[in-house]
Amino acid sequence: MTQQLKGIGASPGLAIAKAIVLSTETYIPERSAVEQPELELQRFRNAVREAREEIERIRAAAEEKLGSEKAEIFEGHLLILEDPDLIDVIEDKIREEAVNAEYALYEVSQSFIETLSQMEDELLRERAADIRDICGRVMNRLRGIEGGDLSQLTDECIIIAEDLTPSDTAQLNLEAVRGFVTEIGSRTSHSAIMARSLDIPAIVGVGPDLRNIEAGALVVMDASEGILAVDPSPEELALFKEKKAKYDRRKAELAQWASRPTITADGQRIEIAANIGQLEDVQKALDNGAEGIGLFRTEFLYMGRSELPTEEEQFNSYKYVLEKMAGKPVVIRTLDIGGDKELPYLDLPKESNPFLGQRALRLCLERQDVFRTQLRALLRASRYGNLKIMFPMIAVLDELLEAKRILEEEKRQLTASGVEVSDSIEVGMMIEVPSAAISADIFAKEVDFFSIGTNDLIQYTMAADRMNETVSYLYQPCHPSILRLIRSVVEAARQEGKWVGVCGEMAGDLTAIPLLLGLGVQELSMSAGSILPARELVGQLSRNEWETLSGQSLAMRGQQEVQSFVQDHRRGV
Amino acid sequence: MTQQLKGIGASPGLAIAKAIVLSTETYIPERSAVEQPELELQRFRNAVREAREEIERIRAAAEEKLGSEKAEIFEGHLLILEDPDLIDVIEDKIREEAVNAEYALYEVSQSFIETLSQMEDELLRERAADIRDICGRVMNRLRGIEGGDLSQLTDECIIIAEDLTPSDTAQLNLEAVRGFVTEIGSRTSHSAIMARSLDIPAIVGVGPDLRNIEAGALVVMDASEGILAVDPSPEELALFKEKKAKYDRRKAELAQWASRPTITADGQRIEIAANIGQLEDVQKALDNGAEGIGLFRTEFLYMGRSELPTEEEQFNSYKYVLEKMAGKPVVIRTLDIGGDKELPYLDLPKESNPFLGQRALRLCLERQDVFRTQLRALLRASRYGNLKIMFPMIAVLDELLEAKRILEEEKRQLTASGVEVSDSIEVGMMIEVPSAAISADIFAKEVDFFSIGTNDLIQYTMAADRMNETVSYLYQPCHPSILRLIRSVVEAARQEGKWVGVCGEMAGDLTAIPLLLGLGVQELSMSAGSILPARELVGQLSRNEWETLSGQSLAMRGQQEVQSFVQDHRRGV
Repeated sequence: MTQQLKGIGASPGLAIAKAIVLSTETYIPERSAVEQPELELQRFRNAVREAREEIERIRAAAEEKLGSEKAEIFEGHLLILEDPDLIDVIEDKIREEAVNAEYALYEVSQSFIETLSQMEDELLRERAADIRDICGRVMNRLRGIEGGDLSQLTDECIIIAEDLTPSDTAQLNLEAVRGFVTEIGSRTSHSAIMARSLDIPAIVGVGPDLRNIEAGALVVMDASEGILAVDPSPEELALFKEKKAKYDRRKAELAQWASRPTITADGQRIEIAANIGQLEDVQKALDNGAEGIGLFRTEFLYMGRSELPTEEEQFNSYKYVLEKMAGKPVVIRTLDIGGDKELPYLDLPKESNPFLGQRALRLCLERQDVFRTQLRALLRASRYGNLKIMFPMIAVLDELLEAKRILEEEKRQLTASGVEVSDSIEVGMMIEVPSAAISADIFAKEVDFFSIGTNDLIQYTMAADRMNETVSYLYQPCHPSILRLIRSVVEAARQEGKWVGVCGEMAGDLTAIPLLLGLGVQELSMSAGSILPARELVGQLSRNEWETLSGQSLAMRGQQEVQSFVQDHRRGV
Repeated sequence: MTQQLKGIGASPGLAIAKAIVLSTETYIPERSAVEQPELELQRFRNAVREAREEIERIRAAAEEKLGSEKAEIFEGHLLILEDPDLIDVIEDKIREEAVNAEYALYEVSQSFIETLSQMEDELLRERAADIRDICGRVMNRLRGIEGGDLSQLTDECIIIAEDLTPSDTAQLNLEAVRGFVTEIGSRTSHSAIMARSLDIPAIVGVGPDLRNIEAGALVVMDASEGILAVDPSPEELALFKEKKAKYDRRKAELAQWASRPTITADGQRIEIAANIGQLEDVQKALDNGAEGIGLFRTEFLYMGRSELPTEEEQFNSYKYVLEKMAGKPVVIRTLDIGGDKELPYLDLPKESNPFLGQRALRLCLERQDVFRTQLRALLRASRYGNLKIMFPMIAVLDELLEAKRILEEEKRQLTASGVEVSDSIEVGMMIEVPSAAISADIFAKEVDFFSIGTNDLIQYTMAADRMNETVSYLYQPCHPSILRLIRSVVEAARQEGKWVGVCGEMAGDLTAIPLLLGLGVQELSMSAGSILPARELVGQLSRNEWETLSGQSLAMRGQQEVQSFVQDHRRGV
């Protein structure tokens, strides 16, 4: 009988294949006394060495498939194998208690995993997953078990598992694996991020019902909607195959837009750029035909670690992206930490309303050590491409002027010490605080460009936390209030001959795009996956017509009226 | 030698007098066995009865001096004297352990006080103060001590104490007491609130240094700045006396404005109203010549209690204010809970950013039981005065329409069941969410008036929590962004022939008032203490001139430029 299951769509796409079920059973070794602990110790050390060699092989493969940053996970695994807090304790246990290596490994690693799993800090919880991964590998070596090598899969399959470890995901044979479904996990767990990087369909967090799926069962998954069905009826299967064929046709159809420029039906040039949040995203952006990077979020450099990134590390990352984009514009936003993103090692005070607190530039102006390091890295990288620096969360002019002053100071110092710095770096600001949108004319004289961060702009304009479900009905990108703010930003920029982009979710929203074009926005920056449909749509729209239509929408009573109006008029295209 | 001390100015004013130091020593009775516990029990009951009679006398006096609501504290004290958890336990102790009443009273009450003092809940901690107050009174009766009756003070004095109990404050002989200073306490503690009601200077929270002051020392206090000096030098004393004389002259000068209408130098009528947050504030508003209540915050009805107020309780409060204002306009704001104000008994979920969460009308539309009860109480009270109902925290039109629909529904039902409801109730909304200010034209057709809540409007427009010190530099009432929003609200209202008031702190800010007048605001609502200086200022300003000047300020680069501009032009008046 067909079984329908629902989870979180972590990476879109449709797939159909037989299930491979990865065992979720944990091997619990029995305690047994050993006569010669030194021999047992030797056995344990051999297993650790073999595991290390295995990981090094996987890392090399991952580096090729996923890029160097993703492969860094395995560096972390290698470090765990050298961690005296773990390894020495296991060895001591074997030696002092004269017990078998399996038992010592299990007992010690389990107590680590349990402690870390209960931590509030997500990073520490992920660390537990890493320890489970790596100790499982050592255990297999001890037991002489080869299994679990997902690179050996050859038949088309969908993987069903409690969770996939980073090393599991890195080993997936993409020739065979059509997708995967896990019992636990969220959109931000390791495996979900990996799936998006690999561009394979993934559904996570399905829950314990997933355990009912038997190996070999036929599974169809629609990861775009987060649903899967097991043993579908012939009718369901036919329907699904039709849906998948349509999806594949559509994907192919869209693919042709990757290499075309973005031009409206009435011949006007628009730029569609990508938002990126890590180095691997650059390739995906290029694959989807991004004409630039409209928003490079630099927080990934600061998060998931225990200390500030050095200037050198940052320089290398910025240089990498600039070179990879080969002269196309790259807008790098300075650190936007605070709000919902914390850095434990900065030891920031708890705030009652972090979204209204000392985040982003506000923090950088206070912590100038952090800010200046980033600015130097940016300035040094500037000669490797077309860099634009963007300051986030500006509310009043003084903040902008102070940020620019500091930037100039660092530039002067670098140049004075003989470092080459590009002299054509554009400097712009995010428009995400209502005050900045309302007074954009005041700012326009002082910047080269504006990029409207609609996620925050909507949140503040509606006074509604975009993470808070109870007020999510107020997240209304197409509300006349938001459109009016965008219009006034564009007008202010136009007066001074500056350009305006949009880099919030709204930029990739097919209902909002006609309005944004009509309001005069020149650049749309979105996640790579949204670029092709957006470019196709822009090609169908007349900017002149939408100038009039968007003007009309400003006088409407609410978002719903605007949305119906847009849909009616898009249909006419 | 002169000693300078600093505390929190809890009630403004200057005073000079000799110190009366209230002992902070607690009497700790010794345990002694009694032969006839029944006689001891009788002695305890007599003391309780005497304490009760004493409290009833104090309550009657307090009711006369402070109004019925403040006197309710003593109702609470009477209830404590009937509380079996306290009284029966003491009696049992006397009976079963055959101990002296003083010891039993001390032991039992002390354990209550200690437990309650450590509670997180501020209400419970205050309850501890009440128990200390009342049990101290019984102890004095048991010991035959009369002292501590502050109504007996006859010479001019400043009271120095660890803290003043509610009954201490209620008994103060205002003919003699010039002010008080306490070691502990905050702006919101009982004694601070009482001081403001009584209009006597008070400084609280000075800390343990206060204990150094000896009885009879000469004390000068400037409660407006929270500072006091003990044994001032002749020079200091002369300076202080001059300052006080100036303060007193100024106070007398301002007093004459209480009975005058508010008219600009060019003869235009403005309304200056008061913000109130409790019933006693009405008298203070009238004393200061308020021409109406521009903002009646109804939260006090819901806070500091363990369940929702009944419709009847609310009706009585609204009726009281409406009658007291005798036909002058009274704008009552519906419940604005959430954000920084919580009601434990509503069991609302914790929010990550409560200021951007489900507060005020958002909550009322969800919890319609709460909302409808308040609306019925308002409608029923409407015939006793000039009621205007105001909805807070509206961001989009649908919210306003839904609130109005519910109000109409309740009105129809009341009328149908024969209840008389005024048919001239104006219905308006706060403008405090940027979206509402930006789209005021959309709302103007649907309301009778707008009242701009600048505190929140600034907070959201600047995306800066007004309670968060690290971003307090962004609280800029005179920033062009804020002024532009106010202008667009006034223009939208004017188009539809509706009136606009301002009810945030900005309305009482002497730098902002000229701009608000110039932008076309018709009503200013402020705390009672700000009314007289504001009215005096308005009398000096030409509205026509400020129409031009405020127009110029909209194009300025920031708040500082605007403020200097206003100060320069006000000087010219």
